[in-house]
Amino acid sequence: MSMTSTNADVVDIARKLIACPSVTPARGEVFAVLEAMLVPMGFTVDRFVTGEAPDGPVENLLAWRTTGAGPHFAFAGHLDVVPPGDGWTSDPFTPEIRGDLLHGRGAVDMKGSIAAFVAALASVPDDVPGTVSLIITGDEEGPAVYGTLALMDRMAAHGLRPDLCLVGEPTSSQRLGDVIKVGRRGSVNMWIKVDGVQGHVAYPHLADNPVPRLVRILAAIDAVVLDEGTDWFQPSNIEITNLEVGNPATNVIPAAAHARISIRFNDQHSGAQLIERISAIAATEGGIVSAKISGEPFLTEPGALSSLVAGAIKDVTGVEAELSTTGGTSDARFLSRLCPVVEFGLNNATMHKLDEAVAVQDLEDLTRIYALVIRRALAA
Amino acid sequence: MSMTSTNADVVDIARKLIACPSVTPARGEVFAVLEAMLVPMGFTVDRFVTGEAPDGPVENLLAWRTTGAGPHFAFAGHLDVVPPGDGWTSDPFTPEIRGDLLHGRGAVDMKGSIAAFVAALASVPDDVPGTVSLIITGDEEGPAVYGTLALMDRMAAHGLRPDLCLVGEPTSSQRLGDVIKVGRRGSVNMWIKVDGVQGHVAYPHLADNPVPRLVRILAAIDAVVLDEGTDWFQPSNIEITNLEVGNPATNVIPAAAHARISIRFNDQHSGAQLIERISAIAATEGGIVSAKISGEPFLTEPGALSSLVAGAIKDVTGVEAELSTTGGTSDARFLSRLCPVVEFGLNNATMHKLDEAVAVQDLEDLTRIYALVIRRALAA
Ligand SMILES: [Zn+2]
Ligand SMILES: [Zn+2]
Repeated sequence: MSMTSTNADVVDIARKLIACPSVTPARGEVFAVLEAMLVPMGFTVDRFVTGEAPDGPVENLLAWRTTGAGPHFAFAGHLDVVPPGDGWTSDPFTPEIRGDLLHGRGAVDMKGSIAAFVAALASVPDDVPGTVSLIITGDEEGPAVYGTLALMDRMAAHGLRPDLCLVGEPTSSQRLGDVIKVGRRGSVNMWIKVDGVQGHVAYPHLADNPVPRLVRILAAIDAVVLDEGTDWFQPSNIEITNLEVGNPATNVIPAAAHARISIRFNDQHSGAQLIERISAIAATEGGIVSAKISGEPFLTEPGALSSLVAGAIKDVTGVEAELSTTGGTSDARFLSRLCPVVEFGLNNATMHKLDEAVAVQDLEDLTRIYALVIRRALAA
Repeated sequence: MSMTSTNADVVDIARKLIACPSVTPARGEVFAVLEAMLVPMGFTVDRFVTGEAPDGPVENLLAWRTTGAGPHFAFAGHLDVVPPGDGWTSDPFTPEIRGDLLHGRGAVDMKGSIAAFVAALASVPDDVPGTVSLIITGDEEGPAVYGTLALMDRMAAHGLRPDLCLVGEPTSSQRLGDVIKVGRRGSVNMWIKVDGVQGHVAYPHLADNPVPRLVRILAAIDAVVLDEGTDWFQPSNIEITNLEVGNPATNVIPAAAHARISIRFNDQHSGAQLIERISAIAATEGGIVSAKISGEPFLTEPGALSSLVAGAIKDVTGVEAELSTTGGTSDARFLSRLCPVVEFGLNNATMHKLDEAVAVQDLEDLTRIYALVIRRALAA
């Protein structure tokens, strides 16, 4: 058994990762930096590039260390970051500590979290039976077509299947540890088109105005109550996000009318069922629906895994974590097909913003939390 | 008493007017040509230019001939034409007879009609007591802000007030004489804006989506039955002509939603009443309405004037005219404030189109009809 105390190193690791510009889709250097840290700790590392334009190519990294029969605990995350934008106080890819904060793109979403997990690994005995793996994509902030899904195929090819999974997304809201995500709503966008017959407003009997039909469709959609929410989910919600006719002429009845809706839905529904339901409403007025499912919902019923993570948080910070399913989609929706998965990471206040920054204290606390989670997961 | 037979001249007069390019707003040459024909027939001619950009300047022509106490019969029309567009068989401003048709922009709308009236005047005794006037604008096809309205001010300044008015718009549909317009619907456009609070679809409680409110407003408007029509008018009609949100982001709840409606309405309503009514509906959901009235409705109850015109048509062509109030707006809406006004002119099949053309026979018949109308109006 070997063990090193590396809480002091988490900031160095975060700095090294932030210093690699890795705007989505990420490839190359940032993965090499991570690989160079994992290999000395006994991890097998499989880096691979996959996919074609427009959604690829994407680089992914799968790393695992098996030290005998035991539970398989996986940590999932991403090394790509959203574009920094203009107006940073210091260079977004030159990590800089000012006051108590480490600044740089990816500081909280989620190179800081990966740094904490790597630092935590170094503090965990490397001879506890079981498997620890890292499922790291370079395409979480982009289309996510060749990212985590490709990693899951790769895991299957290596005969790896986790028993528990922690996604390191920045879930904390007001203070580190206050929110664990145990699920996410699904998301689907739909485009409704109603065709009519163009004409002159003075001769409406020669035309067929599509707009009143679209209005009736939208009124019917707006009256739909998908559900009242569940123990763990908010009510599913429909928003009409766009209307378009594009008719500049005041005296012309338009030929077509368009609307777009966005549905965030809980585990009472599937994307396909919702598309069918909205299509049926649209069809009553001759409307045609096209749709794109961004993600299906997932829920890890609160239980052993969430209690394990919440307990580690409590032990390190004293904070009672809230179990939440709010917010957008994440790659946890894919991983939930394999095993129970929860998400827990840094404070998300500055994610995707200018001057993204993480408290150095949070990095150190998160390292201690992740270390407890790893030990307890392997002992489970 | 002098009198000349000039039916043969109507084609020459029409040619001279068509040969002057007078795309709206018209000024100069085309008015000089008309003036040169009216002055020798004893008319006093007042040409004036008025108005400023963007709706002016515009040239107008007022001409009158008073030959003793008697009725004042006015003929109203316009010398401006819509742009010819590309693709004419022969030059739009070079009048050309092919077969039975005289081609050129304005042939039916409405230089041909003005030519017929001038030719008719020459065939009418010039010593019948009464007044004949011509109210000719260069801005009927444009904004019509400085056209007929300015002419009406000018008439008042000269102490002229007609007892009967004929507008020479091309009202005939299938054959010359089949339609007399005794009224026109009014027209108003309204813009409805609903403001909300922008946000992310994942956090709808932090946003206020304006689209469902706009949809409810439009559904309420679509349910409005303004009237069932009258003896002389079709039912008033509301068309939703445009929708606009302009939100490219599928995950964003928009800040504002817009719609545009167009109402064609009969004499059961006024533009101001309709604006008030739609505004009240919009206000129930926080919508704000702005509006532009293009024209109020007018109706000359069928009676002496329409019978006089219909009789002249019947005597010349044998056609029984239908009295109609369909179609768009015309300057008759202004003139109806002064006296009974009806509209009657050439066949409108080619108006505003490529290869606009008038049958030479129609020009000659219309001249005879107008001559009868003038004689009978002065004798009325
Ligand atoms: Zn992230
Ligand atoms: Zn006209």
